[in-house]
Amino acid sequence: MNLDKAFAYIDQNQKQLIDELVQFLRIPSISAHKDRDADVARALDYDKKKLESLGFKTEVWPTRAHNGLFAERMVSPDLPTVLIYGHVDVQPADPLDLWTSPPFEPRIADGRIWARGADDNKGQHYAQIAGVEATLKGAGELPVNVKFIIESDEEHDSEAMAMELEKHKDKLACDVFVVSDSNFPDRDHPAVTLSLRGVLAMEVTITGASGDKHSGEWGGMLYEPIDVLRHVLQNLKDFETGKVLVPGFYDDVDEPTPATRAAIAGRPWNDADKAKEQGVKRLFNEKGYTALESGTLRPTLQTNGIQGGYTGEGFKTVIGNKAMAKISTRLVPRQHPDKIFAAVEKRIRELVGDKGTVEIKKFGGGLPFWSDPESPYVQAGLRALTTAFGKPSVILAMGGSIPFVPHLVRVTGAPCVMMGFGLPDDNLHAPNESFPIDCFLGGAKAAAAYLAEVGAMAGAPGRK
Amino acid sequence: MNLDKAFAYIDQNQKQLIDELVQFLRIPSISAHKDRDADVARALDYDKKKLESLGFKTEVWPTRAHNGLFAERMVSPDLPTVLIYGHVDVQPADPLDLWTSPPFEPRIADGRIWARGADDNKGQHYAQIAGVEATLKGAGELPVNVKFIIESDEEHDSEAMAMELEKHKDKLACDVFVVSDSNFPDRDHPAVTLSLRGVLAMEVTITGASGDKHSGEWGGMLYEPIDVLRHVLQNLKDFETGKVLVPGFYDDVDEPTPATRAAIAGRPWNDADKAKEQGVKRLFNEKGYTALESGTLRPTLQTNGIQGGYTGEGFKTVIGNKAMAKISTRLVPRQHPDKIFAAVEKRIRELVGDKGTVEIKKFGGGLPFWSDPESPYVQAGLRALTTAFGKPSVILAMGGSIPFVPHLVRVTGAPCVMMGFGLPDDNLHAPNESFPIDCFLGGAKAAAAYLAEVGAMAGAPGRK
Repeated sequence: MNLDKAFAYIDQNQKQLIDELVQFLRIPSISAHKDRDADVARALDYDKKKLESLGFKTEVWPTRAHNGLFAERMVSPDLPTVLIYGHVDVQPADPLDLWTSPPFEPRIADGRIWARGADDNKGQHYAQIAGVEATLKGAGELPVNVKFIIESDEEHDSEAMAMELEKHKDKLACDVFVVSDSNFPDRDHPAVTLSLRGVLAMEVTITGASGDKHSGEWGGMLYEPIDVLRHVLQNLKDFETGKVLVPGFYDDVDEPTPATRAAIAGRPWNDADKAKEQGVKRLFNEKGYTALESGTLRPTLQTNGIQGGYTGEGFKTVIGNKAMAKISTRLVPRQHPDKIFAAVEKRIRELVGDKGTVEIKKFGGGLPFWSDPESPYVQAGLRALTTAFGKPSVILAMGGSIPFVPHLVRVTGAPCVMMGFGLPDDNLHAPNESFPIDCFLGGAKAAAAYLAEVGAMAGAPGRK
Repeated sequence: MNLDKAFAYIDQNQKQLIDELVQFLRIPSISAHKDRDADVARALDYDKKKLESLGFKTEVWPTRAHNGLFAERMVSPDLPTVLIYGHVDVQPADPLDLWTSPPFEPRIADGRIWARGADDNKGQHYAQIAGVEATLKGAGELPVNVKFIIESDEEHDSEAMAMELEKHKDKLACDVFVVSDSNFPDRDHPAVTLSLRGVLAMEVTITGASGDKHSGEWGGMLYEPIDVLRHVLQNLKDFETGKVLVPGFYDDVDEPTPATRAAIAGRPWNDADKAKEQGVKRLFNEKGYTALESGTLRPTLQTNGIQGGYTGEGFKTVIGNKAMAKISTRLVPRQHPDKIFAAVEKRIRELVGDKGTVEIKKFGGGLPFWSDPESPYVQAGLRALTTAFGKPSVILAMGGSIPFVPHLVRVTGAPCVMMGFGLPDDNLHAPNESFPIDCFLGGAKAAAAYLAEVGAMAGAPGRK
C-alpha cells in the first residue's frame, strides 16, 4: 500500500527527478583528470545537498584523493539498516569527436538521457536516492534505516576511500548493502548480479635509444621499443587461447562451481546475436570456457591503450624511443591484485631484459567478489526488481569491477546485493554513454520496493 | 688556383652564407602537413630566387603534390654537365616538447645550427649552392655546366616529382648527378655513399566492435584490436632474428657481394661504441649479418608508430575499437615496393581474418639503389672531399632512402655520386636536429672542389 504511494510519487514527479539528474550530469566530474578536481567535489556536494534536503545527516570523509560522502537517516534502532553505495565520478570522455552531442551537455532523445555518467554511476545511484525520496514523500517515512556511502574515485583511485573504511566501521554497520552499478542483460530481464571481477591496472613504458632515430639509418640495428613492447604483450596473453601466460597467474584462481556456471547459463544470451550487436564477426572465448564465462567468471588481461613513435598525419620514418601500454587484468576469487602485479611485473622485466629499459607504474587495483545466490537479501532484490519492472528477474555474473564492494563486504560483514538498472548498450566508459529513462524511473521504484521488502523482513519470524 | 679562390670566398663570406641558411631554416616546410603547403612553396621559392641571383635560368615543375624546381647555368656545350639534387621539405617536428629550442627558430650553439632541416636537407643542398656561388664569384665562372633539381616532397610523396621526370628527360641530361643527403661516419672521415635502401610505408588500422567497450564487461569475450594488431606485428618480423616473416619478402633480394661487405667493413665502426652513443645496452643485428650490414645492406621492417585505446592521463578501462600502426620496410636491390606491398598486405589480411576488419593505406615507396665503387665520378667525389676537409675519405652504405635517386639514375642514365656532409649525431627525423657549421662550410668547399674535379676530367684524354 505504502509502496503504491511511493510508485505514484515517482510517476507524478518524473520531470523533477529527470531534471535533477540532468543538472547532476552537467558536472564534468572526471576523477582521473587533475584539472577536474573542483568538478568532482561539486558533484559530491550535489548528492550531499540533496540528501540533506531529505533529512539525512551527512559527513564528508577526506581521503588521500577525492572525498567521500556518508549520509544516514536513522528511523529506529529496531529497524534493519540498508547501506546504499554509489559514485559521483565518471570516466574520461575522449575521444570527444566520437560523441554525437557533448558528453557534459545532457541530451534527452530516443527515451534515453545521453551524457557521460548517465548510467555509470550518476544515473544508477540517483535512482536509489529518488527511491528514498519517493518512499519518504509518498509514504511519509522510511520502513528501514538508510545510509549512503558515496565515493568520488571509483574510476581513478578506488583504494583512496577503501583505506578510510576501517576507521568508520561503526558508522557503516548495516544489515545489507546495496549497489546499483550493474546491468540488466536486456530490457526484459531485471537482474541481481552475483559476482564482480577484481582489477589490476598498470602502465608499462619501454625506452630504447637516447632519442627518436631515423628508421632508414637505424632500422635493423636497434631493438625498437615498439617491437619490445609487442614482444612483451604477445608473451603476456596467448592470442589464440586467451590464456594469460604469466607464471603463477592462475595459482589462486577459484574455478566456478557447476551451480554457478548453470545459473549464469540461465540468463538470456546468444553468442551470434551478441557478436552482431557489438559489430564483430564473432566473439572470443578463453579455451575451455564459453564466451560469457570468459567475460565474467574467468580472469583475463587487456591492453587498454598503446602508443609509440609517430602517430600523426602522414608518415614519419622514425624509430620512436618510447613505447607505452596501459594494461589491466580482471581477477576472480582468490586472486589478489598485489600478488598478480608482482608476477606480471617480474615477467615483463624478464621479457625486456637488456633490450630496453622498462618503467612500470601500478594503478589502483580491486579485489574480486562472489556472492551467495541463496541469501534472503538477494532473493528480496529479485522480488523488488520484478515488482518495479513487472518482469521476471534473473541472476548474472559481472565482468567488470567495483573495487569498493569487496572492501565493504570485509568491513561491514553484511551481505551485498548488486541491483543495477543499466542496459548493455548504455556505452559505459565509451563515447555516447546513455541511460534509458525507463531504467532510471523503474530503478527508483525498485529502490523503493527493496526498502519495503527489507522493512517487511524486519517483522519476519527469526530476525534478530 | 681557381679552387683556392673559391675556398677563399667561402672563408671570407661565412657570415652571409650562414645567415642565408638560417633564413631558409625559418620556413616550416613540412610536406606531410597540408596546412604547411604555403611554407613548402615558400621554401622552394627561396632556392629559386637564390639560383636566379647566381645567373641560373629556373623553371617550376608542377607535380600531383608539391612543385619541383629546375635550374641550369649552361657555360658551354663542350663542358661536362653536373646535375645536383636537393629537397626543401622537412620532416614533421613533433614531439615539440623534446626540442631544446623551437624547430623553426634556428639557434647557433656549440658549433652547430639547430633547426628542423638544418642537415636534412636544407643545410646539405644549400652547401652545394654555396659551392656554386663561391666558384662563380671567386673564380669568375663555373668549370662545368651545372643543373639543379630540387624537390618539395622527399619526406612525404616522393613519387610526385619522380612521375614528372620522364617528360623532362632532355633537360635533365648530364654526365653525373650529385646528391648531398647523406652522412660522414664521423667527423674525421668524409664519405661517398654507395647505396641506398628502398622504402615502402603503410598504415594499418584494425577495427573491432562498433565502439569502445568497457574492458571489465567485455574483456575475454572480444577480439581486441590492439591484440590483433600486435598479433599481426609479431608475425611480420621475428623478434629474435629480425627476419621478416612475410612470404616472398626475400625472393628478389640481392646478397651483398664479398667486395661490398669488405668495403663497408672498412669504415670506422665499433658495435659497443655505437650502442653507447645511442644510449642502448646493445645493438640489434639480423641473424647472419653484422649490425652495420643489417642497417645498410639488408632489408628490414619497422613499426614507426602505434596507437590504440586510451593513452591519456590516468587509466581508462576500455577495449578501444581501433588500433593503428605505421609500418615501413627498407628494401635492397631488386626488391620492388609494389611487389612487397602486395605481399605484406596479403599477409596482414590473412592474419586478421575474421578477428576484426582491416584497412591498409599505402604511402609512397622508393626503390633501392647500389652504385659502382669503381666509377671515376665516385673517385672524383672521394678526392673532392679530401681536398675540402683535409681528411681521408671512405666509402659507405646508407640505410636510409632517397626515393628520388633511383628514378634519376633511370631517367638520366648517369652515374650517381652521393656526397653528403652530415654527421651521425645530427638527429635527422628527430627532435633537436642540427648541422655542424664546419660541415656546412666544408661541404660548400667540397661542392666547389667537385666541380673543379669534373671540369678537369673534361680535358682528360679519353673523354667524349
